[in-house]
Amino acid sequence: MNRPLIIGVMGGGTTGAKELEDAYTLGGLIAIQGWVLLNGGRDTGVMAASAKGADDQDGLTIGILPDNTSRHASEHIRIPIVTGIGNARNCINVLSSDVVVACPGGMGTLSEIALALKCSKPVILLNYEKEKRFEPFQHQGLLSYAGSPQEVIDKIQAVRL
Amino acid sequence: MNRPLIIGVMGGGTTGAKELEDAYTLGGLIAIQGWVLLNGGRDTGVMAASAKGADDQDGLTIGILPDNTSRHASEHIRIPIVTGIGNARNCINVLSSDVVVACPGGMGTLSEIALALKCSKPVILLNYEKEKRFEPFQHQGLLSYAGSPQEVIDKIQAVRL
Amino acid sequence: MNRPLIIGVMGGGTTGAKELEDAYTLGGLIAIQGWVLLNGGRDTGVMAASAKGADDQDGLTIGILPDNTSRHASEHIRIPIVTGIGNARNCINVLSSDVVVACPGGMGTLSEIALALKCSKPVILLNYEKEKRFEPFQHQGLLSYAGSPQEVIDKIQAVRL
Amino acid sequence: MNRPLIIGVMGGGTTGAKELEDAYTLGGLIAIQGWVLLNGGRDTGVMAASAKGADDQDGLTIGILPDNTSRHASEHIRIPIVTGIGNARNCINVLSSDVVVACPGGMGTLSEIALALKCSKPVILLNYEKEKRFEPFQHQGLLSYAGSPQEVIDKIQAVRL
Repeated sequence: MNRPLIIGVMGGGTTGAKELEDAYTLGGLIAIQGWVLLNGGRDTGVMAASAKGADDQDGLTIGILPDNTSRHASEHIRIPIVTGIGNARNCINVLSSDVVVACPGGMGTLSEIALALKCSKPVILLNYEKEKRFEPFQHQGLLSYAGSPQEVIDKIQAVRL
Repeated sequence: MNRPLIIGVMGGGTTGAKELEDAYTLGGLIAIQGWVLLNGGRDTGVMAASAKGADDQDGLTIGILPDNTSRHASEHIRIPIVTGIGNARNCINVLSSDVVVACPGGMGTLSEIALALKCSKPVILLNYEKEKRFEPFQHQGLLSYAGSPQEVIDKIQAVRL
Repeated sequence: MNRPLIIGVMGGGTTGAKELEDAYTLGGLIAIQGWVLLNGGRDTGVMAASAKGADDQDGLTIGILPDNTSRHASEHIRIPIVTGIGNARNCINVLSSDVVVACPGGMGTLSEIALALKCSKPVILLNYEKEKRFEPFQHQGLLSYAGSPQEVIDKIQAVRL
Repeated sequence: MNRPLIIGVMGGGTTGAKELEDAYTLGGLIAIQGWVLLNGGRDTGVMAASAKGADDQDGLTIGILPDNTSRHASEHIRIPIVTGIGNARNCINVLSSDVVVACPGGMGTLSEIALALKCSKPVILLNYEKEKRFEPFQHQGLLSYAGSPQEVIDKIQAVRL
């Protein structure tokens, strides 16, 4: 099977209006490419916005939920994966994504970036403050920064070609 | 969103020809209903057969892999969820399924039946030897036995109506 | 390091008086041997009784909790391991035990027996109804039945010699 | 039961001589206080050094292993908890610790700091480069920096009083 690319979009559960708009746009662009959107599944913040963006473009959306029911899933998540393992599901988010995109967020998002780099997954940071700690990964070509949702898409295409 | 039903199909990694044929037929029938097939994702036994059955009917197939890569996924799994948590992923198989169907299998399958019943998920056993231990769940209407893939479909429809 | 043997004691959260008494006695005998008791950690049923039995004999008790706090741990658990992964912790119970002893219980206990056998851990069933399904493992010498806590101890010693 | 304090010591699998010496000293000081040392259990880097430090002072050492056997555990780990869940065990490290101490390390360590802060666990960073991103947690009193193993102990005592 020629599997579609799975793009993980991570980011804060509570975040600003600009970040939510970017997450929505990014979700839509991912869907338009024919890629699958994967995120943490909850009905809040970057998760809800990116899922709505992809769903509005008829993209497939997968939510890896920390809970043991799908009660808190965004209605724009088509396939809720109910893990029941709490924050340990962050590892699954990362391992299941071909590319991990992180939008601004808190400690959950930071743990996902760290786990992604530990697993040598390509990471793209969208409007994320530069961090000295990530420089070695940038030099290796594993991590890069993007200033807009479209730039994220361009970078994913570059990674894949 | 009006989410599609997710049907988990569990069963042995190594199993007989009749069981594989049933798993293939069941996967196809699930897809024809417009339901999503979810299983353990590996390229072997009931997992591979049910995924091929659903994929041959253009159904969506989700594989919850124990490994930390998708290398051992069946090619008929469209969305590999890479958990990296080994047998602990059996809980995710069960929690993510609206109905759990178990085909004959070994101890992994038995653990999934037990975990499903513990979580009060409806369980349908396909050509599975009757067990005294499951009788209380049968009386509660949580567990039932089916003699053919079509009977599984009929029972799922009955559960849902 | 010469590590102490870790004995996992599984069994129902709600169970009869005779089972609780057996679990208490078994916990004590494990401690007297200088072995470590490991269980699911909760303050109920076989978990609480076996922990109290071991603790009353100054044995070391480890509880692998499903929750994300130690609030529901038995006070007789000296080291609560707080997993936050729900029933998926059953796999950790089994993998961390050198020998798995199962007392009568429900579906959680059955899942632990099944997972233990899948991982080729020695399993001893204490006053547990015989099951045809386990016969192949009995013939392999991986599973055995005991009629009393002392018989469990004797069998563990036999496994280890 | 009056449970002993469990101190989680995180840090790199490969790290410098000074860091290893500090980890060894810290492990010893933890044991001398009568506290339990918990770490990732592997026979390498900060894990092995802190376990040896505690074990040399007859402290209790718990290792939360990512693997599905205890083969790669340090010989100074008295109780190997075999999780089989890979990096997802980082969450268990954090949830099971009353205080999380992080020594210099890579992305695994960073994920543990992030997860600890997300779960509101007190975090002490030993000879760790200051990071702007952690400042809000420092102001809340949840995160602090220490310049020596003894200062870590002093800070833990301050947290507890």
